Amino acid sequence: MKSDIRWNFANIGQDQVGEKSGLSEDDIAKMSQQLAATHNDLKERRNRGDLPFYNLPEKVEIVEEIQQYAEDARKRFSDVVVLGIGGSSLGPGALQTALGRNPECAADAPRIHFPDNVDPFEFDDLLGRLDLEKTLFNVVTKSGGTPETLAQYLIVRERLEHKLKDKYNEHLLFTTDPVKGHLRRIANSEKIRAFEIDPGVGGRFSILTPVGLLPAALGGLDVSGLCEGASAAEEECTSDELLINPAYRFALSLCLLRDLKNVGTVVMMPYCNRLLGLADWFRQLWAESLGKRFNLKGEEVFWGQTPEKALGATDQHSMVQLYMEGPFDKVICFLEVEDHGVDVVIPRIYPDQPDLDFWGGRTLSELINAEKHATESALRQAGRPSITAVFPRVDAYAVGQFLMTLEIATVFAGAFLGINPLDQPGVELGKVLTKKRLAGES
Amino acid sequence: MKSDIRWNFANIGQDQVGEKSGLSEDDIAKMSQQLAATHNDLKERRNRGDLPFYNLPEKVEIVEEIQQYAEDARKRFSDVVVLGIGGSSLGPGALQTALGRNPECAADAPRIHFPDNVDPFEFDDLLGRLDLEKTLFNVVTKSGGTPETLAQYLIVRERLEHKLKDKYNEHLLFTTDPVKGHLRRIANSEKIRAFEIDPGVGGRFSILTPVGLLPAALGGLDVSGLCEGASAAEEECTSDELLINPAYRFALSLCLLRDLKNVGTVVMMPYCNRLLGLADWFRQLWAESLGKRFNLKGEEVFWGQTPEKALGATDQHSMVQLYMEGPFDKVICFLEVEDHGVDVVIPRIYPDQPDLDFWGGRTLSELINAEKHATESALRQAGRPSITAVFPRVDAYAVGQFLMTLEIATVFAGAFLGINPLDQPGVELGKVLTKKRLAGES
Repeated sequence: MKSDIRWNFANIGQDQVGEKSGLSEDDIAKMSQQLAATHNDLKERRNRGDLPFYNLPEKVEIVEEIQQYAEDARKRFSDVVVLGIGGSSLGPGALQTALGRNPECAADAPRIHFPDNVDPFEFDDLLGRLDLEKTLFNVVTKSGGTPETLAQYLIVRERLEHKLKDKYNEHLLFTTDPVKGHLRRIANSEKIRAFEIDPGVGGRFSILTPVGLLPAALGGLDVSGLCEGASAAEEECTSDELLINPAYRFALSLCLLRDLKNVGTVVMMPYCNRLLGLADWFRQLWAESLGKRFNLKGEEVFWGQTPEKALGATDQHSMVQLYMEGPFDKVICFLEVEDHGVDVVIPRIYPDQPDLDFWGGRTLSELINAEKHATESALRQAGRPSITAVFPRVDAYAVGQFLMTLEIATVFAGAFLGINPLDQPGVELGKVLTKKRLAGES
Repeated sequence: MKSDIRWNFANIGQDQVGEKSGLSEDDIAKMSQQLAATHNDLKERRNRGDLPFYNLPEKVEIVEEIQQYAEDARKRFSDVVVLGIGGSSLGPGALQTALGRNPECAADAPRIHFPDNVDPFEFDDLLGRLDLEKTLFNVVTKSGGTPETLAQYLIVRERLEHKLKDKYNEHLLFTTDPVKGHLRRIANSEKIRAFEIDPGVGGRFSILTPVGLLPAALGGLDVSGLCEGASAAEEECTSDELLINPAYRFALSLCLLRDLKNVGTVVMMPYCNRLLGLADWFRQLWAESLGKRFNLKGEEVFWGQTPEKALGATDQHSMVQLYMEGPFDKVICFLEVEDHGVDVVIPRIYPDQPDLDFWGGRTLSELINAEKHATESALRQAGRPSITAVFPRVDAYAVGQFLMTLEIATVFAGAFLGINPLDQPGVELGKVLTKKRLAGES
């Protein structure tokens, strides 16, 4: 199948938004050599096996194993709690938000919870509402050593053993490194079912590994559709026709806006509540991959473009005033949905009051989509650039495309900028200081 | 009672974070005259009656009326749906998120829903889950003309009348202008109970009017505590001792960081899930009030500082890499909680594995608060400024203080910058274009 999300980059052009924040055709044309070199660089690294995330949608045997496990588990559990933080929670949570209430979801699906944070009030509240006899805990940490996740695991493990005695391990499911780390060791010694994360796939690129697919399958989502969508995007976004490749155009647009026009913020703004989790997922992807002090040559660059999320039409009543009139430092990436799956007609109740009657006979889909187009036009008239991704529908196939397109865009941006998009050296100090503080050393 | 949120501004100082993003004592000292002039300006405008939001916490008779109404309504309804968008939903939603599960909440409180957006899927899904015979719809629009809210009202109104015949009006509650607009006219002609919004209080400053207080009271929150907290902050933040006034220091810090150090983004980052809604509420307040093309003299300034939200510790695994190593364009405003109300002990389960045993005996509160301090220190060492507000507890008294402090900070910032913080001219074009598009004119 072909990818069917449609990307529109017209509104980043100088002909649309003017010189202050718009890119000229020349700005893009000048990059053609570098674009080709970056494309070849990615191809080589992929051939060497350095970028295994590209190939995840083809791992059909893993998907089958996951679906088999999930089908059985859905019969045994009313609730699934994913214990993981950052990439181990954002991606799977976004899938659940986007697809978890769609009519094609398995009817027997348990509720899926993502406590994510180590907030004592939230975690206690959640545990208090669960029936442990009918709950499965999916503990997810690639290294097996994430403190927040281990803390949650220890708490849950004690309660499970207290309640279920030697059957506690049937309520645990690990997703971790195939060989290394605490979680793998515990899985082996305590006979806990554990799925593997490919060691070459980092947290924020892990949504199509068991990290994302297990909770998705447990929640009854269309996991095959997700992989098929990702596969279609992988094909589209590795094409040698570089300037029609949406991943490359997305990355190139944002990087040039940052470097040539000082556009430091990219706002992802779906006009659809279900897509808001994807904006959260993108936030981590773009921020953590590209926000770097050093480039690959070891030079200080302090590069970064701040990804933020907003929700249309809601945030027209909150953030859009700033987007329209504030500094010229933002590009908006709209997510538009053609068919919301459901529609609601606004009735005619006050025929004698033209202002109220105006809305009668129209639908909420028409209203929200008209607002998107109006905001896009208003921003364009105010000289503010935007990009749009049009989702034909909110389904697994579209979401899979979106995920893969942005993952490829992110590694492309890293290669283009000469930045390593796969590490996160800046968070080590905080980890060390947390341990020191708890040990009473600071 | 005295205010007891503690603000810490040490980490915006050059002595802590260096010259690149830190303010010197001289930077602040130079402002003393302008600070005093701004203070006097606000006092005068308040005395003239131009800033009525300051006095909202004293309106005891309104609070009593609201509580009386809510006590009765709580007996009749299992669900309350607030139909409003932007300021009509963000504030009341934030209160519910912060306080709605606290033990002091009224036990008979109905569920409160904030659909906010005009997303057809969400709205249909919500309406499908409600028992209309036990549901109250609180329709909130100050002007009485907000299209999204009117569309929701028309849909609901038809369904109520279909189900409840001439009793439909008992399931409607309006919050709107005392005299003007569609909603007021409908309330009068159809005998629908309606509360008033002071015409001098704009949407984003309306949380202590019936806009915020009605849903709060219906949800069984401690409305008196909220007003008392706001009142305590009002006293603290109008003091003539300007440099210990937290609202003024907050505003001055952010404005100087923007103007002297090019710090274009302020990230509000609670280490507590319940406070995340307050960060959303602040986003609107700071963005819409200060993001302006023209100053009061009519000069083009394109001023603005982008408020964003993050969640600690979760976003240490997402955004903090960028905050640590990206451009020097951010100040973080941490919200820390001393007593989370509940705690969870991490048990010792693997005494022979030091890495795992390290966490045993500690609590989730210790962990999350240690992470906050570690992140603050790491950012400081990386030359990144921050502010902290320490909440002794998450209760109505603290939340009330916080709201009033930031409202005063916002009008102070407007006065200091010579910007009108009470209008939003930049969103008009989008409204016009939406209507045109729906009318088939564009």
